[in-house]
Amino acid sequence: MAMRNYKQFLFLLVAAVSVGLISIVFVLQWVLYFKEGLAWDGGLAEFNWHPVLIVTGFIFIQGIAIVVYRLPWTWKCSKLMMKFIHAGLNILAFVFAAVSLVAVFDFHNGADIPNMYSLHSWVGLACVLLYSLQIIMGLCVYLLPITPGALRGAFMPIHVYSGLFIFSTVIATALMGITEKLIFGLKNPKYKDSPPEAVLVNVLGLLITAFGGLILWISTRPSWKRPSEQLLSRAGAGSGSPKGSVILSVSPTTDRDNPGANSNTSKRN
Amino acid sequence: MAMRNYKQFLFLLVAAVSVGLISIVFVLQWVLYFKEGLAWDGGLAEFNWHPVLIVTGFIFIQGIAIVVYRLPWTWKCSKLMMKFIHAGLNILAFVFAAVSLVAVFDFHNGADIPNMYSLHSWVGLACVLLYSLQIIMGLCVYLLPITPGALRGAFMPIHVYSGLFIFSTVIATALMGITEKLIFGLKNPKYKDSPPEAVLVNVLGLLITAFGGLILWISTRPSWKRPSEQLLSRAGAGSGSPKGSVILSVSPTTDRDNPGANSNTSKRN
Repeated sequence: MAMRNYKQFLFLLVAAVSVGLISIVFVLQWVLYFKEGLAWDGGLAEFNWHPVLIVTGFIFIQGIAIVVYRLPWTWKCSKLMMKFIHAGLNILAFVFAAVSLVAVFDFHNGADIPNMYSLHSWVGLACVLLYSLQIIMGLCVYLLPITPGALRGAFMPIHVYSGLFIFSTVIATALMGITEKLIFGLKNPKYKDSPPEAVLVNVLGLLITAFGGLILWISTRPSWKRPSEQLLSRAGAGSGSPKGSVILSVSPTTDRDNPGANSNTSKRN
Repeated sequence: MAMRNYKQFLFLLVAAVSVGLISIVFVLQWVLYFKEGLAWDGGLAEFNWHPVLIVTGFIFIQGIAIVVYRLPWTWKCSKLMMKFIHAGLNILAFVFAAVSLVAVFDFHNGADIPNMYSLHSWVGLACVLLYSLQIIMGLCVYLLPITPGALRGAFMPIHVYSGLFIFSTVIATALMGITEKLIFGLKNPKYKDSPPEAVLVNVLGLLITAFGGLILWISTRPSWKRPSEQLLSRAGAGSGSPKGSVILSVSPTTDRDNPGANSNTSKRN
């Protein structure tokens, strides 16, 4: 089964993954080259796990988890397997976020810096709590076999919206974190003198914003949704060739888990 | 013509407007009670116009501009008039943002603080430039009478996405701005000592995040879209009573300006 505007999808996906991976390189460059490196010693090198784990897990892995249903080469996999992958990636991202919080609290307690005073910490903790709630609700509604299909359908708009809202707010929180750390961490020269570290980390902020923008675009195009299960089985699960295969357009659906999915078909040309 | 889940819509709209207005009260409380007040003197009181104009214009007015087509009591107004209101509110928000930038540059130049070194300034300037581009493109595509209908339809997903992306990024930028200003502005007690000003402004950050979340929810519910013009004229422009009138459900549309709008109807009960 082929996707509409497949080349455009592929281009944007490659762009998103590239920008995400470059962000990880930038955050590693920051802590390994400009800062104290990485260690679990209660000091600044332990703090440095915080940005590394947030960019790698809470931003990059969460972003991939959001778009994983949309990869057309996964459409031959069962819906249940894709749910496990989606849930697994989100749980992995949550573990990264949780460990990154431990690193900050450890560092603050060792350096006698108060916890939870800044807007960054308030919004960030809210994100982690909402994310854990999102994962628990997702598991109960979409992986517990006893949950009625009507509830799954009714909850889907909330699940999708919450996921994208939390993801966006995580990125906003990271931008606040970058701002804090560059102000507190740069003393001579200061942030306002624009030393190379400041420029590198500002660019990191632009990169994660661009990553967020790409993931949000990919995940909100109706024509790139995973088709309904009925349609996939009708079209033949093994058909991967774009030529002469069925393409998709937007319409209401009957797939109980995926109320916005595409369900009508038209022959290409 | 009545809207689906009209009470829920009304509740969320009232919540959004209330949270937005409370944000404006909070930012005024901040600059008038805790800071130097408002003046156009090249000093800190001039800087204070920056957060006031951003929260009032670039956040609140832009948010209202985004949802203005969705107010069901405007569905009896012509599409052209609604376009003028949407464009007018966005241009007003742009003027607020532009004046707020002048206030910051004036203050920086007077106090010998460099311009454009922080991530806040980079992302913020990008928002203002993208917003001006968004307004120019919107005027050319949707208000120039010579623009072909096919182009209007094809550009709509980009126009909607860019609008919501810029709006979200403005809020992220405001959160960075709050972080900067609380770190630089609070000296004794410091930000980390959580004085009342810090708590007030952190809460302001939560309020504008909630405002953003409400506007994004309202503006992305397919069933709350302004119906297509054909449907509105068929249903009779004067029918404002919910009882026995036509209600809307999601489906593809033929309205050239509004490719995702609702166009099929069903009798209520």
